[in-house]
Amino acid sequence: MNAASYSYESLFAFTKTVFIHFGMQLEAAEIAAKNLILADLRGIDSHGIARLNGYIRLQKAGRANFNPAFKILHQTPSTATLDADKALGLNSAHFGMQLAIEKAKQVGTGWVAIQNSNHFGIAAAHAMLALEQDMIGIALTNASPLVTPTFGKERMLGTNPICVCFPSNQFNAFVLDMATSAAANGKLEIAQRLNKTLPPNWVQSENGSASTNAHELKLGGALLPLGGHKGYGLAAVVDILSGVLSGANFGPWVPPFVAFLNPLENLPGNGIGHFVGAMRIDAFRPASAFKKQMDEWIERFKQTIPIEAENPVLIPGELEFNETNKRLKNGIPLHHLVVESMQELASETGMSMPIAL
Amino acid sequence: MNAASYSYESLFAFTKTVFIHFGMQLEAAEIAAKNLILADLRGIDSHGIARLNGYIRLQKAGRANFNPAFKILHQTPSTATLDADKALGLNSAHFGMQLAIEKAKQVGTGWVAIQNSNHFGIAAAHAMLALEQDMIGIALTNASPLVTPTFGKERMLGTNPICVCFPSNQFNAFVLDMATSAAANGKLEIAQRLNKTLPPNWVQSENGSASTNAHELKLGGALLPLGGHKGYGLAAVVDILSGVLSGANFGPWVPPFVAFLNPLENLPGNGIGHFVGAMRIDAFRPASAFKKQMDEWIERFKQTIPIEAENPVLIPGELEFNETNKRLKNGIPLHHLVVESMQELASETGMSMPIAL
Repeated sequence: MNAASYSYESLFAFTKTVFIHFGMQLEAAEIAAKNLILADLRGIDSHGIARLNGYIRLQKAGRANFNPAFKILHQTPSTATLDADKALGLNSAHFGMQLAIEKAKQVGTGWVAIQNSNHFGIAAAHAMLALEQDMIGIALTNASPLVTPTFGKERMLGTNPICVCFPSNQFNAFVLDMATSAAANGKLEIAQRLNKTLPPNWVQSENGSASTNAHELKLGGALLPLGGHKGYGLAAVVDILSGVLSGANFGPWVPPFVAFLNPLENLPGNGIGHFVGAMRIDAFRPASAFKKQMDEWIERFKQTIPIEAENPVLIPGELEFNETNKRLKNGIPLHHLVVESMQELASETGMSMPIAL
Repeated sequence: MNAASYSYESLFAFTKTVFIHFGMQLEAAEIAAKNLILADLRGIDSHGIARLNGYIRLQKAGRANFNPAFKILHQTPSTATLDADKALGLNSAHFGMQLAIEKAKQVGTGWVAIQNSNHFGIAAAHAMLALEQDMIGIALTNASPLVTPTFGKERMLGTNPICVCFPSNQFNAFVLDMATSAAANGKLEIAQRLNKTLPPNWVQSENGSASTNAHELKLGGALLPLGGHKGYGLAAVVDILSGVLSGANFGPWVPPFVAFLNPLENLPGNGIGHFVGAMRIDAFRPASAFKKQMDEWIERFKQTIPIEAENPVLIPGELEFNETNKRLKNGIPLHHLVVESMQELASETGMSMPIAL
C-alpha cells in the first residue's frame, strides 16, 4: 500500500543528506543519491530509496566503505580493472563508466571490470551515462545467488542484469535493462503482498519441482533463469565478466546484499563485481546517421502489427521514460514500509522527513 | 532419417571443392568449409553442410560474392566497420574476427561491425577464434525476420544469435551460443519431421494466439522471443549492433537466406550484418589467473546439486564438445535429404560424393 507521493527533489535531497551523515563526501553523496533515486523515477521501486537503509546497514557492518580510494589495478588503452575499495556500486560503477567513456574517446571503446564493490542499483543508471556522449552504454553486475542453473536445485547465480542502451534522435533512447532470471525478486515480493500465485517457470521448490508459490524462496526454493537453459547461460556470462574477469567473487560466493547475512568463508575474490563499457558511435559510423536510423528502427517497431490495437509493441525503455515523466510531474509514490524505513533513518540521524505531496 | 555417416575430413573436402568449383579461391574455400562443417561437428545439423546448396543458390542468384574485396569503411584503434562486398558471412565474420583480434593485441579489445554480408553459419565458429589467443570472443548476427516482438503478430526479427566464449585451463572452454528466440527454426523442423507438437511459447499463430503446431510458420505464424519481452529486447540489441551500427539492413528488412525469396525494395542498408569482438584477458588480469578461476567456476557449477543425479548441471558448450569428440571418432550422421542435396551438387559439378563410413 502506497503511503504518499514525494517529489524527486525531496527524495534526492533526503538520500544525499543521509549518505553525508554517514560519512560520504558531498560529490560522492550526490552521485550515489542520483543513481539510487533514478530507480524510483523509472518505476523500479525495488531498487530505489527502498534500499537506502540496506546500504547504511552494510556500512555499519563494515562491508561498505563510504570514503573509498578507487585503484586502477591494470589498464590498456581500451580496458581497466578497478579495485573499488568496498565502495557502493552506486559510486564505483559510475566511476568505472566515466573511465570507460574517457577510454572510448581516445581509442573508440572502453571497458572496465570492477572488483571489491557492492550493489550498484539499477544497471541503466550507469549505462545511460554513455548516451549523453553519443556512445552505446553497457552495464552488467553479478549479485548474491538466488537462481539455479538448469537441472540444478541450488542457488548459484544472482539475477545478474544486463543493460545495453543506444542513443537515438527524436525518440527516447533504446534502454534494455533486464534481469537474466525469469522474474526479478521484486516481482515475487509484489505477488506476496497481493497474495497471488506466480506464472509458471518463475520459481521452483527446494526439491526442484515446479511451483507457482510466491513464497517459494523462503521455503528453500530458487528463482529460475529466463526461458530455461539460455537464461542460465546469459547469467553465467554476466557472472564471469563481472566476477571472474575483475577478480571479484562469482557464482555462489557473491556476498549477500543484506547485512544480517555474512559472506561465505574462503572467498575466491573481492566483494561483488561489475562490468561496464562504452562504445563511441562514430568509431563505427557518423553518429548523426546512426541516430537517424535508430529513429527509423524505433518507428518501424512501434508500427509492428499488434495482436490487440490497444496494446502496441513497446520499445525497451519506453515504459520507464513514460514513468519518469509521470513521476517528475506527479511525484514518486512510496510504499508505507519504505516510508517507515525512511522514518527510522530520520529519527536516527535527527534529519527531517521529506514532506509528502 | 539419417542415411549414413561421413568423416569430418570427407565433408570438409567435399565442401571446399564445391566452393572452389563455384569460383572461390583456395584459402577462402578452406575457411568457409571449416566454418560450415564445424556446425556439423558440434551437432548443429541445421547450420552445416545442410546449407551448402543454399549458399550456392545465393551465389547463382547474384546475391553472394565468392570473390569479395573486403573494405574497411572506418576504423579507430579498437573498432572497425567492414563492407563485406556480399561475401558469405562464413568468410567475412572470420576476417572481421581476425581484425578484432589484431586490434585487441594492440589496445586490449577489438570490435568489428560488418555490413553487406550473408549468413555466417554458427556464431561459435567465429567467436571461438579468440580462445586460441587467450581472449574472450563475441559474435552476433542479425537474420531474416521470423520472430515477433512481444504484443505483435508480425515477423520483425531474426533468431539473432549471441555467442560469448571464455578460455579455461583444464576444462573445455565456456561457449554460450544461443538464438534469442525461444527455439531456433531447426528445432521446429525436427518436430515437423517427427509429427510432434511443440512446447508452449515457442510459436504463435498468424492472429497472435497461442499455438503448439510445428507447422505454424508456414501458416503465417511467428516464432516467439526467448522468455517473452526480455528475449525481444536481446534480439533487438543484436539487430541494432549487427544492422544499424554497421550500416546493414535491420528488423523486417534483413534479406532472406533462401534464394527463391527476394529482398524487400527500398532497403535501409546493405545485406545482413554481424558484430564481432575480442577482449584480451590480460588486458584485465593475468590470463593464467583468469583461466585457473574459470576452471574453478566450471568445476563448482558442475557440482551444483542436481534435481536428478543422472542429469547433472551442464556448462554452456559442454554438449557440443562431447558431440565433437563423438563425431570426430564415429563420423557425422547426415539426414537423407541432406545427402540428396549433396548428390545434386555432385552431379551438377561432376564431383564424386564423399564415401559413407
